[in-house]
Formats: sequence, structure tokens, C-alpha cells
Amino acid sequence: MPIYKAPVKDLQFVLHDVLDVSQSDIPGYDDMDADFTKAVLEESGKLTSELLAPLNVVGDQEGCRLENGVVYTPTGFKAAFEQVKEGGWTGLDMPEQYGGQNLPYVLSTAVGEMFSASNQAFTMYQGLTHGAAAAILAHGTDQQKDTYLPKMVSCEWTGTMNLTEPHCGTDLGLMRTKADPAGDGSYKISGQKIFISSGDHDMADNIVHLVLAKIPGGPEGIKGVSLFIVPKFIVKDDGTPGERNGVSVGALEKKMGIHGNSTCVLNYDEATGYLLGEENKGMRAMFTMMNEARLGVGMQGLSAAEAAYQNAVEYAKDRLQGRDVTGTKNPDGPADPLIVHPDIRRSLMDQKSFVEGARAFILWGAQMIDAAHRSEDKDADGLVSLLTPVIKGFLTDEGYDMTVLAQQVYGGHGYIEEHGMSQFTRDARIAMIYEGANGVQALDLVGRKLAQDGGKHVMAFFDLVKSFCKDNGDDDAMADFIEPLKAASKDLQTASMYFMQNGVKDPNHALAGSYDFMHLFGHVCLGLMWAKMAKAATSQLAAGTSDAAFCETKLTTGRYYMARRLPATGMHLARIQSGADTVMALHADAF
Amino acid sequence: MPIYKAPVKDLQFVLHDVLDVSQSDIPGYDDMDADFTKAVLEESGKLTSELLAPLNVVGDQEGCRLENGVVYTPTGFKAAFEQVKEGGWTGLDMPEQYGGQNLPYVLSTAVGEMFSASNQAFTMYQGLTHGAAAAILAHGTDQQKDTYLPKMVSCEWTGTMNLTEPHCGTDLGLMRTKADPAGDGSYKISGQKIFISSGDHDMADNIVHLVLAKIPGGPEGIKGVSLFIVPKFIVKDDGTPGERNGVSVGALEKKMGIHGNSTCVLNYDEATGYLLGEENKGMRAMFTMMNEARLGVGMQGLSAAEAAYQNAVEYAKDRLQGRDVTGTKNPDGPADPLIVHPDIRRSLMDQKSFVEGARAFILWGAQMIDAAHRSEDKDADGLVSLLTPVIKGFLTDEGYDMTVLAQQVYGGHGYIEEHGMSQFTRDARIAMIYEGANGVQALDLVGRKLAQDGGKHVMAFFDLVKSFCKDNGDDDAMADFIEPLKAASKDLQTASMYFMQNGVKDPNHALAGSYDFMHLFGHVCLGLMWAKMAKAATSQLAAGTSDAAFCETKLTTGRYYMARRLPATGMHLARIQSGADTVMALHADAF
Repeated sequence: MPIYKAPVKDLQFVLHDVLDVSQSDIPGYDDMDADFTKAVLEESGKLTSELLAPLNVVGDQEGCRLENGVVYTPTGFKAAFEQVKEGGWTGLDMPEQYGGQNLPYVLSTAVGEMFSASNQAFTMYQGLTHGAAAAILAHGTDQQKDTYLPKMVSCEWTGTMNLTEPHCGTDLGLMRTKADPAGDGSYKISGQKIFISSGDHDMADNIVHLVLAKIPGGPEGIKGVSLFIVPKFIVKDDGTPGERNGVSVGALEKKMGIHGNSTCVLNYDEATGYLLGEENKGMRAMFTMMNEARLGVGMQGLSAAEAAYQNAVEYAKDRLQGRDVTGTKNPDGPADPLIVHPDIRRSLMDQKSFVEGARAFILWGAQMIDAAHRSEDKDADGLVSLLTPVIKGFLTDEGYDMTVLAQQVYGGHGYIEEHGMSQFTRDARIAMIYEGANGVQALDLVGRKLAQDGGKHVMAFFDLVKSFCKDNGDDDAMADFIEPLKAASKDLQTASMYFMQNGVKDPNHALAGSYDFMHLFGHVCLGLMWAKMAKAATSQLAAGTSDAAFCETKLTTGRYYMARRLPATGMHLARIQSGADTVMALHADAF
Repeated sequence: MPIYKAPVKDLQFVLHDVLDVSQSDIPGYDDMDADFTKAVLEESGKLTSELLAPLNVVGDQEGCRLENGVVYTPTGFKAAFEQVKEGGWTGLDMPEQYGGQNLPYVLSTAVGEMFSASNQAFTMYQGLTHGAAAAILAHGTDQQKDTYLPKMVSCEWTGTMNLTEPHCGTDLGLMRTKADPAGDGSYKISGQKIFISSGDHDMADNIVHLVLAKIPGGPEGIKGVSLFIVPKFIVKDDGTPGERNGVSVGALEKKMGIHGNSTCVLNYDEATGYLLGEENKGMRAMFTMMNEARLGVGMQGLSAAEAAYQNAVEYAKDRLQGRDVTGTKNPDGPADPLIVHPDIRRSLMDQKSFVEGARAFILWGAQMIDAAHRSEDKDADGLVSLLTPVIKGFLTDEGYDMTVLAQQVYGGHGYIEEHGMSQFTRDARIAMIYEGANGVQALDLVGRKLAQDGGKHVMAFFDLVKSFCKDNGDDDAMADFIEPLKAASKDLQTASMYFMQNGVKDPNHALAGSYDFMHLFGHVCLGLMWAKMAKAATSQLAAGTSDAAFCETKLTTGRYYMARRLPATGMHLARIQSGADTVMALHADAF
């Protein structure tokens, strides 16, 4: 059975020593002193490692089942969900008015990492609910908010997002689900939606589906899409669930992973729906919370890598196989532990340096989202919008690769299901696909975000790197970090320049390099995070910290990232600079 | 249901236009004219695409089942195996004396690609049999050969390889299975073996287990390991299966993939075994055929990538989603096919350029194995021994990554099991682990092969690249290939030099870079293959070929590899040159 230990110490380091949250002037941050966040993180660490982690394998092996139109979750999920609700963990960052705790998003993100790392499939039930509630909060009428939010914040009712149809995923303008006005202000929703996470289950009294559909006679394509609230049970005037609505489970999908989450085909047959937001502005309403949703999926890349890494480390310390080539380390045993071998360490260091760098990147992103929402900081909003596709695409690609590395440490034992390492890989795979496949993230980054507001936000990013390098360029203790960061950032600027110079005459020159640009950008971001963490660690060491070992480990791990991972930027740049010619040359029939 | 089309034309191109097999003076090659190989490939292409490919999903979904100690294969496997046997496909390269066809290994490898691509789990039953038969052929007594080989060459009986035990996989010196002399020349084998592919099933009258075990009183560790033939049913004097031997199935492993193959825990309880080869020389006997076995697994990386790629191409042409940014390509449809989008093409070109390069690499390796065995060419033997860990490690890593890319083209439809794309990924994953995990391949390459015979073989490789570049350096048509190949080869030489200069004072400086070296070497090999294929294509174009489109496509695909994949060598070199310091610095407790 895989283990999971909550990384409270490292989360505290990022929150306080790197991001310095309690000193920020973002409203609500002044309450976040180290004792408070530690108490929250330790409590959620206990819940996730003791309650949710042991259910992770159960969820994978049992999966959900559909019987007579009703979906049942795996053994233990329902009871665990009750405990999560009772602990108030489902509405940490939601308004107090609706039963939430109004805590900063950065803290609920730190908590969210633990939930997701301990049990991704389980956490998706509350994750989707949070997303649907956030959309209602942003676009609902007062009545809609009062009807749905208190129940959804507590997860007494859960939520779903219904976008995909059999013939359209990315290109939602092709949507066929329709919404006929019923005459009483409501609509009759008919059509089929697929890949609906948490689409039906036995853990809530009601399920609030947010459904994209077209009102007949509206504009063509994506401009004619509206968003509707379609509850599984129509809510009575007294606020309780009443009559069953016209939505049914067509099938449960058989998936590569996240078996514990009920991914449904949902059939809508004149189901009663209520317009959320304005007519034909459905995409805008659905995507209001896009930065948060995508950051949340990026976090799944990190959390899967963290969980897999922790187990790989344990296995590498326990499993005796071969001898250290520089001299026996375990003379009393039949062999040395795997961790003595350089190539096992190469793998573990790849994982460790990714996980810690990604953690800082995610929490920095969450802090910018708080700044955007709580302080109306437009620069933070612009920068986090630019970085969102990087967070989502780069971290889920890399996170997946890290689960593969962790699985490899186990050798054959990683391939059989008994040890749970295969599950981390299979579960992590979905994060590269949902909430906008990673190729779409790259397109969003290069085709839209890069030039947004005249390129202001990418320039702000470069300035940020530049000023950090300038401020710390004379510090010998930082030399291992500043030079590689400068070089990587230069590669990123050269790539941006290439797009500007060549993308205008042929957009394919930019788009053919979009995926590499996303990864190049991701490495520079993690390089920046490592440089910032190194700065925090060297400062603490200079001040005579009581935990020098932690700081030294942080510096070594950072040096590894700078020396061994950042050189990837040169490869991505070369790929980008080769342009679109070889990419686009073949006729479709020649493939 | 996934499709599979046999790549006969491309295999013919490699065999005849690149390797020029029928002009080779390797014994047996003179019969391999283009008409003959085409007939063989077309016949096996028909069998694999029509019979084995449709059973691939069946095998995955049903898996094998263990009932009352007996393993049953998935529906259709048994009947298909009969057809494969009847067609004579199981002993293509085996001696005619034992019922084989004595064809060159290079041709059986080309056929093997199709078998593996169409149904990896199924093909493993005959693959393991081939490996076991080859060991008996090399080390058996005449009586052993006469008893087992005719049945194994025809796959009337199948074979297995028993190395791994619960506590040891890579480090076989820790083995506990013992072989007590029975007094009559035979031995009593007792112990437990795990991860035994094709360990038991219902498709053969007997199963010939090759089992590594220790004879009590022998040398410690790996030097005291012997190899035994342990048939499931003890063979009677008349050559037919008799009494049940003391070997039983302890369990069927639940695995991430290759569900159609029966991976068993086998318990040996005083089973009768017969020494194969010499006492205490078991490892040597087991590994005699190592180059072939590892090349065969490397081929699985290629074949999984090929099968997944073919389906990704079909989907990319069929699925309508979004519009070409440079102008609508399918004005009569609601959207353009995925294949118009640059990032989808980037993915498909990565896959295509890998598959075709890997195919040439594998067949070149097989040709060298033929030269080593049939012509006793020691240089070919040395070079293919050097390249074997590259073929196995690099091609299975890359092949796996390509199945992930192919799956991604399907978006959410790639994550559900319905389309079969998840299976390609899950099946391909094992090839990175078995037959020596890829980290062990890297160790073999850098720790053993590189310096073998005074570094003679790696120098021969560099000479080969150098003379190719020299011979073609003045040809303008080859410019896109020669310069990148030179640069990549220089990176490889620099890395080798780094190991020589730094590995002596601290072997960790070499071993910490071993995995990157394996990938760096792999890219240079594929670069060389592409340069050779480009040469063949330009020659044909210059001579006025009737299939200019094929040659032009080959050149474009090669240019893609040189421009977009070869720059990875710089990254790997930088990682190698960063040495062991950051890799080895942390105490085990700091992870």
C-alpha cells in the first residue's frame, strides 16, 4: 500500500520564506501567520494521509459502478466524504455568507495539494463542486446564489461541468445540445454530454450540473452558447430537492485511471434548466474561473509527482540490490539499498527538484490570483493569465513524466498493480488532457496570451527575472543560480523574438513551436522559483537558522535543477527556431 | 477498434535500399531478393493485421484467468496460436534440422515487428519460446536438443525464462531457488520465481521452463548460479509429455498492461530439472542470446509506437475540430480535421520520424547480429554489443513517449479504454522494465560496453559516422543531414571524453550521466539512420525513381528529425558534464 506524508514543512517554507505571505498587503493575508497556516496544514495533512490516502488504491481497484441508473462510489468514499464535509474542508476560500471560511486562495491551494496527492479521484468530487459554485457565485442571480451556494459550499450538493459532446471537445462551437425556452423563464435542455467528471454518485443529496447549450435562433458557433443550471433534483420552494429532472446516466466511462471518480455520459431529455449569466455568453461564464481551474489541474501534476516520489524514495531506501560501485555501504546486508546507485539518484533528484520547484510555482500563481481578486491588481491578473497555460501544460506533462520515473525505480514491481505505482501514472495521465488538452494550452499561450495587452505581461515577467538577477548577481552564494537563470531566460526571450519576427508572415512558424515554448517557459519559471528558494535558504543560513540541514538540502536540490534540468531550454529553442517548414511540409496523405 | 496496417513498403525500403541485404556476403543473405522478402512480409502482414490485431483489445479487456491452478488465455488466442503455428511463423530463423526455416535474423526481425505491433501480449508466448529454444540450441546436449527443440520451434511446446525472485531482480546473485542433485543426474528444484511471462496457459501441450537456481555448496552469489530445464510435464522416453512436474502457478499478476500475457508466480517444489550447460555457468548460458533478446524488446518500443501512430494519424484526419489558422481547409464541413493544426503535426512528425528511424536502427542491429553469427564477424559482434543497450533502453523509452503523444492526439477519447490508445501506452510501459530495466542498460553501456576491448567499438562507431559524413559532405542534397549529424556526433564524443577524464577518479561522474549518455547515443544513431535513409532517397530521386513521392516524404521526415530531435544531444551533454556532485550530494535521509 503506498504511503503519503503531508509536506507541511516545505509548504510552510514556500508560504513564509519565499512568498512571505503574512507580510503581503493582499486583504486577508495578514491573518496568515506561520502558526495559523501550520495548524491548518497539519490538520489537513492528518486527514489526507490517514483517511484519503488509504482509499486511493481502493478507488482504483473497485472503481464506480452503475446499477439501474444509479452510480455507486467505491467502498469508504461516502463515509470519508462525510468526514471531509464535517471538517469544513470544502469551502475554505468561499465567502462566509454561504458557509465558507473566506481564506485566501493560496492557502486553500496548499491544502488542495494534499487532497489531490492523497486521492485525486476522490478530490475531484469536491473540486468540480468548487468550480461550479465559483461560476454561480460570479454569474448567478441572488436567488440562484441563495438556492445553490450554501449547499454546494458544504458539499451537501455537489456540482459538475458539462462541456464536451461526442463530436466536440476543444471546438465547442460545434455543440448540439439545445435549450428551448419553456415559457416560464426556464429552459428545456436536450442533448448528450460526455466525460462528465463526478457526473453521478451516491455521496450527495443533489447534483448541480452546469450545462453549456444553444438556444435555438441564436448566433452560430461559439457565440450562441449559453450556460444553464440543471439540478439532478429540481429544487422546491423550501430549498429541498424535489422531483427528478430529465437527466440520466447513459454510461460510466471505462478509463485508464481515476477509477474512483464517476466519469459519466449524461443524457439530457427536456431537463429543466435555468440560465446562468447572460444568453449567448455561456463560454465567458464558464471560463470566468479558468485561471483557478487550470491552476488546480496543474497542481494535479505536482501532487501526483509528489505522491509517487515519496514512495519511490521509500522503495529506494528499503530495496537491497547491487553494491555501491565506490564501496559497500551496507556490509552487514546481502546488498546495498538502491539509493546508493547514481542512476537511481538521478531519477530521484529529477523528481525532487521538480516537485519542490512546482510547489513554489503553483503557490506563487495562487498568490497572484489572490492579488487579482482581492486587491484588483491588474498586473498580477495579467501575469497569472499569461502563466496559467504554462502552469497547466508544463506541470502536468512533467508531473506525468515524474510518475513514470518513480514507477521505474520499482522495476517490475512498478508494473504490477500491487504497489500502487502504476495507479499514480494512470491517474496523472488525465491531467494532460482535461481542462484544455496541453496542446490547446500551448496555443493559448502563444496565440493569445503572449501578445495580450501589447506583450506587456511577458515583458513584466522578463523584468522580474532581470531585476532578481541584478539584485543577486554579486552574491557569490547565488552564483550557481543566477548564471543559469540568465541563460535560460535569454533562450526564452530569443524564442519570443523569433515568434514576433516570423509569426506575422506565417502564424504556423509560431504555432509549430508553441508546445516547445510552453516547456521552455516552464523551465524558466521553475528556474526562477529555485533561484528565489535559494535566496531564502542562503539568507536563513547567513542569519544562523536552526534548521541548516533543510536549507542545505534545498540549495543542493536547486543546484541540481539549474545544472541538470535548465539546459532543456536550449533544445526547445532550437526546435522553435527550426520553424514550421518540416512540420507542415507533408500532405496529409503522406503520414 | 484500433487499426493496424503492415508497413511492408517501409520495411522493404530499409532492407533493400538502405541495408542492401541481398548484396551482402553474409551467408543466407543472397536469397533475400526483394521479391522474396516482399512475399514473406506481405503474408505476415496479412496474418498480423487481420488475425492478431483484432485480438489485441480482447486480450487487454479479458486478460488471462487462473482457475484451479490452470491458466486460460483470452478468447481467440488459442485458435490464433494454432494458425500461427500452422503457418510456420514460429521458427523462421531456427535451424531446418529442428523444423525451422534457417532464414536470416534480419528478416525474422522485420516479421517480428509486425507481430509485436499487432499484438504484443500474444506475441510474447512465441517470443519467450524462441528465447528458451535459442538457449537450448546454444548450450544443450544433443539429447536435450532432440527432445525439446522440434517441439519448441513449432511452438507445440512453449518456453519461459525464470530469473526474478521476490527479493531480487537485477541482482540475481541474491537468488534463493536451489537445485539439489537427485543422484540420477537430474536435480530437484525448489523455490519461487515471479514475473514469469507466459508462465502457464492453455495453448501448448507442454511448457519448458528455463530456471536459474543454485546448487548447494557452490560459489557465493552470481558465480554459483546454474541453469536448468524444468518441463511442466516430464517428457517420457517416447518424447511425449508424461507425469506432471512439481511446478505450480502461485498467482497471476495484475498488471498495468499486456493483460493477454499470463505473467505468473511459479512455485517450484522439488521439481525435476536438468542442467543446461555447465554447473555454475547459468548466467552465461541465460545471457548467450542477450543481444537478440534485448534487440527484441527494443523492437517492442518501435512496434508500440508504430501501432499507436497509425491510429493517431487516422484520428487526426477524421476528427473535425477547429479551423486552420492560415485559412479554412474543409469549407463544406463544420470544422477542419485535426491534422491541419501545427501542434498536432508536431506530434505526428515526432512519432513518424521516430518510428522510421527506429525501424532502420533495429534492422541494422539485426544485420550485425547475422554477421556476427553467420560470418563470425567479430567487429560486427563488438559493435552490436555496444549498441544493444542503446537499442533496448533508448527505443523503449522513446517508444513509450510516442504512445503517450499518440494517445494525446485523441484528447479525452485517448483516456477512455474504448479506442484502445490507452492500451498501447500501458503495454509499451513494460518494455522499459523487463529484460534489464533501462537504468541497467545505461549502466551496461557506460560501465562495461564503452571501454570494452579498449574502447575499440565506440571508436569504430565514430569512424563509421565520420566516413559517412566525409563521403557525403560535398553533396548539397545531403547538407540538411550531414551538419546536424556531425554536431550530434561531436556531442557524443565530448561526453565519452568526459567519462574517460572524470570517471577514473570517481566512477560516479560517469554513472550519474549514464542515462543521458544512452539517450544521447540513441539520437546520434537515429541521426545516422536518417542520414543513410536520406542518401538512399536522394540516390533514387537522382536516378529517376518511379516513387518520387515516397522518397520526398522520407527526406522531409528525416529533415524533421535532424532539425527537431537531434538538438536533444546538447541537453544530454550538459547534464553529463554537470557531473555527479549534485546527484550524489544528499544524504539518503534528505530525500
